Amino acid sequence: MKKYLITGFSGFVSWHFLQHLEFLEVPVQVFGVDLLGPDFDYTHFKYAGCRFEKIDLLDKNQVDNLLYQFQPDYILHLASYSSVAFSWKDPVTSYRNNTNIFLNLLEQVRNLGMECRVLSVGSSEEYGNVSEADIPLIEERPLDPVSPYGAARVSQEQLSKIYVDGFGLDIVMTRSFNHIGPRQRETFAVASFARQLVAMAKSGMKEGELSAGDVAIVRDFLDVRDVVKAYYLLFERGQKGSVYNVCGGQGVSLSEIIRKLAAIIDIKVNVVKKENLIRPLDNRIIVGSNEKIRRETGWEPQIPLSRSLEDIVSYWQGKL
Amino acid sequence: MKKYLITGFSGFVSWHFLQHLEFLEVPVQVFGVDLLGPDFDYTHFKYAGCRFEKIDLLDKNQVDNLLYQFQPDYILHLASYSSVAFSWKDPVTSYRNNTNIFLNLLEQVRNLGMECRVLSVGSSEEYGNVSEADIPLIEERPLDPVSPYGAARVSQEQLSKIYVDGFGLDIVMTRSFNHIGPRQRETFAVASFARQLVAMAKSGMKEGELSAGDVAIVRDFLDVRDVVKAYYLLFERGQKGSVYNVCGGQGVSLSEIIRKLAAIIDIKVNVVKKENLIRPLDNRIIVGSNEKIRRETGWEPQIPLSRSLEDIVSYWQGKL
Repeated sequence: MKKYLITGFSGFVSWHFLQHLEFLEVPVQVFGVDLLGPDFDYTHFKYAGCRFEKIDLLDKNQVDNLLYQFQPDYILHLASYSSVAFSWKDPVTSYRNNTNIFLNLLEQVRNLGMECRVLSVGSSEEYGNVSEADIPLIEERPLDPVSPYGAARVSQEQLSKIYVDGFGLDIVMTRSFNHIGPRQRETFAVASFARQLVAMAKSGMKEGELSAGDVAIVRDFLDVRDVVKAYYLLFERGQKGSVYNVCGGQGVSLSEIIRKLAAIIDIKVNVVKKENLIRPLDNRIIVGSNEKIRRETGWEPQIPLSRSLEDIVSYWQGKL
Repeated sequence: MKKYLITGFSGFVSWHFLQHLEFLEVPVQVFGVDLLGPDFDYTHFKYAGCRFEKIDLLDKNQVDNLLYQFQPDYILHLASYSSVAFSWKDPVTSYRNNTNIFLNLLEQVRNLGMECRVLSVGSSEEYGNVSEADIPLIEERPLDPVSPYGAARVSQEQLSKIYVDGFGLDIVMTRSFNHIGPRQRETFAVASFARQLVAMAKSGMKEGELSAGDVAIVRDFLDVRDVVKAYYLLFERGQKGSVYNVCGGQGVSLSEIIRKLAAIIDIKVNVVKKENLIRPLDNRIIVGSNEKIRRETGWEPQIPLSRSLEDIVSYWQGKL
């Protein structure tokens, strides 16, 4: 029976990955770790037998014990400070955690001589300031990050390559583009928009004001359920030491997303620009090419944007 | 009177920078910090009035106090784990220190709103695995580091750019190629060769064995006295947010260096390859273009390799 270690177990992506394992109906063992306990019942999965432990991945001894005891076949490394905005507020905490946690993990895999595959989850933020001529972004494009978060992700990817080439570890890297879906926290733009609009509708408003940063920016949004399928396939079929865009290949502006959400909820919306939500530096447009991951793993994104947004609205309607 | 803060004050480059300030005969104030005390008398400089304090730059409060009290005009950031070999032995310690120290420093400069120029000293190791078609390396070439040390330096440079563009800090970045000169520690290749050969000659040997790693590799060696002049000129004339190769522009193999050292010392030498001195990954050839720093600052390297090697031999003759 295959064993998965999932860091950042309590988060949004982890839950959807567990759902995917469950959907596949193949019995697996899962060991989840996180700083905080999950807000879902991880014992109810039938095929994924889950254990959970609160662990600080900055603590070398805890990481060492964990790996030695569990002996995973796969490590899905989701633990991170994944907010670009936070990395501008507290660059040191964001950067230090994102790089040091990952390095601790790789180092203990190396020290224990473990034969396991690590999925290093990176970000489209690694590309940095891109010109429209570079769109869609392919994996070969030089990286030029423009946020502390992006710089940490570049470093994670470079360290991965170094551990593969220098120490023989089995690591596959992603550059994951924006993902959206039910259960995403409202610190992320689309979740925040949906939550605000649903709250207005629930209070009987037909029209309302939405606080947002720069809504002209264009992003490549992928449903989290397509993301976790990609991760599963990269464990199975990804090439050691190789990096893959995980993206839908289509760009959509935040204002378009807001328009679509408002249509689903049936509310009229006026966007109010909040200066504190504008980042010091940001990319106008980020759209990736998913040609490589399709070709090498057979992955295909299956959930259209309209369905993602409907499901996100339903989620917030149920939650609020 | 201009005020310089020098981190890594006890090291080899710092001493030569102080000598250069002294040579210029312009009174300046210097505050040196390091984990260890310097092995030289820093009170004897006439023009550079030096103070020194033992400080751990990982400690935010110490950094904060230091900057607030001293209010430097210039920060020469030399503190680092500068050995590539060590970064293969202990990637976590090397990487963590190199990135976190630097980030702490930038963050406190930002928090205090200080108007000072920071020189971020990077490395030719940032270029990584280069093909001969890329030689000489120009600053525009994409970075692809192949050691944990190189990855940390890339991150330092990317974070510098982000702090310039995102927070308005005044930072100039270098990619400094191998430097050599008197006072360099024998953990570095050329110093180690010189020391070993001088020791043999002192003990009366006419022929001896020299332990070395891969001596076929070609590097762009620059005398440390030319390096510190470049740093001084970058403080004065470098462009904010810009990165400069600091290099001689000429490649020489380690075996050629050994041959020249042996000729100066008048000893016959047989090189013994030591596996433990061979790195998991290494570049065959690294030679840079110094066209940009010459054009923008007027800097010119002035010390030929032959003089560097003679001075290095004299240094070890005096020391052993």
